[in-house]
Amino acid sequence: MARHVFHCPLRWGDMDAYGHVNNVLFLRYLEEARIDLMFRLADRDGSGTFAGGSVVARHEIDYLRPLVHRYEPIAIETWVESINAASMTVRYEVKDEETVYARAETVVVPYLLAEQRPRRITDDEREFLERYRDEGAVVG
Amino acid sequence: MARHVFHCPLRWGDMDAYGHVNNVLFLRYLEEARIDLMFRLADRDGSGTFAGGSVVARHEIDYLRPLVHRYEPIAIETWVESINAASMTVRYEVKDEETVYARAETVVVPYLLAEQRPRRITDDEREFLERYRDEGAVVG
Amino acid sequence: MARHVFHCPLRWGDMDAYGHVNNVLFLRYLEEARIDLMFRLADRDGSGTFAGGSVVARHEIDYLRPLVHRYEPIAIETWVESINAASMTVRYEVKDEETVYARAETVVVPYLLAEQRPRRITDDEREFLERYRDEGAVVG
Amino acid sequence: MARHVFHCPLRWGDMDAYGHVNNVLFLRYLEEARIDLMFRLADRDGSGTFAGGSVVARHEIDYLRPLVHRYEPIAIETWVESINAASMTVRYEVKDEETVYARAETVVVPYLLAEQRPRRITDDEREFLERYRDEGAVVG
Repeated sequence: MARHVFHCPLRWGDMDAYGHVNNVLFLRYLEEARIDLMFRLADRDGSGTFAGGSVVARHEIDYLRPLVHRYEPIAIETWVESINAASMTVRYEVKDEETVYARAETVVVPYLLAEQRPRRITDDEREFLERYRDEGAVVG
Repeated sequence: MARHVFHCPLRWGDMDAYGHVNNVLFLRYLEEARIDLMFRLADRDGSGTFAGGSVVARHEIDYLRPLVHRYEPIAIETWVESINAASMTVRYEVKDEETVYARAETVVVPYLLAEQRPRRITDDEREFLERYRDEGAVVG
Repeated sequence: MARHVFHCPLRWGDMDAYGHVNNVLFLRYLEEARIDLMFRLADRDGSGTFAGGSVVARHEIDYLRPLVHRYEPIAIETWVESINAASMTVRYEVKDEETVYARAETVVVPYLLAEQRPRRITDDEREFLERYRDEGAVVG
Repeated sequence: MARHVFHCPLRWGDMDAYGHVNNVLFLRYLEEARIDLMFRLADRDGSGTFAGGSVVARHEIDYLRPLVHRYEPIAIETWVESINAASMTVRYEVKDEETVYARAETVVVPYLLAEQRPRRITDDEREFLERYRDEGAVVG
């Protein structure tokens, strides 16, 4: 019922020759936020973890403001938009107190690495994910 | 009137701990394809270059098949989907002879780096871009 | 007279297909540690900053143990080994409480970016750097 | 008896906020050159391959000139400096026709990934490596 906030540290080398954080790096930040939610928190919670394998099926990202390297982490608000049988949609806002730098959405598919095929979301996983459904969101 | 094909070399280090090319790296490949079209070709052509500054306003990408490191470059077919007053939409297919690995779309905005603001597309640039409009595409 | 400790966050994507933090990424961690010392601390201190430009002239690094992604940052102890007229040598240990993962050394040259040439270290900078000379170190 | 030349493509994103190829990326280029020699060529040759696992024990690199992104690959001359029982030393020059940008040396250790331990170099591997010993080099 709440958004997860991941405080993502930047690296100086994330900037490109234009002196901005390169657009590609934002996807790396989203990966860090997903891993914090789906690997670290889900694991601690005992409701399973997607660390065993999950793949990205789709990204959408809108860049709203240029971001420059700073020493303080950037906040990545992350929440679950919808949960389907074998995929889930995660949304994010990359922001600090004054500014939203980007909004994005990712479709994640749990994946059996050894067998190289997708798998269904388990009941435990679904229960875990439901806690990070945003209040305004509609069931997918 | 034709798609541009950029042959994008992979790097072994583009793979992540799952042994696949990481989803983030695909955006790096798209960047290379755009730069080949919008910096290198546009410059050679004398019709101006976006190298002086251009920013990504939006990406959409669908991952269709896992990609593993190989020594041969991957083909990135790139074409212009639409041209507006101050932005253009570029589409791509990341593929080899057998397989399409990803399809993507990027909104690019020409940008005056020194003044930190977007600018309009010039007539020369528009003429250049028109050559890479895909045949089936509708004017934006 | 003391080592600076920078707590460097890892990213999941720093791992390569072998499931270890890739050797290349260690240099990125060292860069973060140098920036924390030479850009952030030197700036706060008012004794000048190398952020205006500095280049790496040389690295040496010994990898002692494989490092795997974890959620806690890794410590990078950083100290100044020697200070010359127009360069300084920085040393590091990449470690946690149990293990030293790598030891490294970098020669850094202050650089005038606009003029594309090295410059001498100022007295203020030297005074700042002296504070991070390790006790056992001999003047360069 | 000859140096191997790997033509390493640069990426625009290899540049940092100073507008130069970042020092860290040079190690990525060296990795590509090693992989071309030790994975691709050794495999084709039938004399075994180090792709099954090898780790870097040490790097030394001297940066001689700043490198800026260009569309043509950079040449990485690579040769075997010495071969020991369970390690080898590889040397490189990163260059184009006019300029040497960096010289470097890497100690590589063949590694059994599954067992997480180093292994000895086989006779077939040694024979392969001997072909890339530089003429002036002394047996290690």
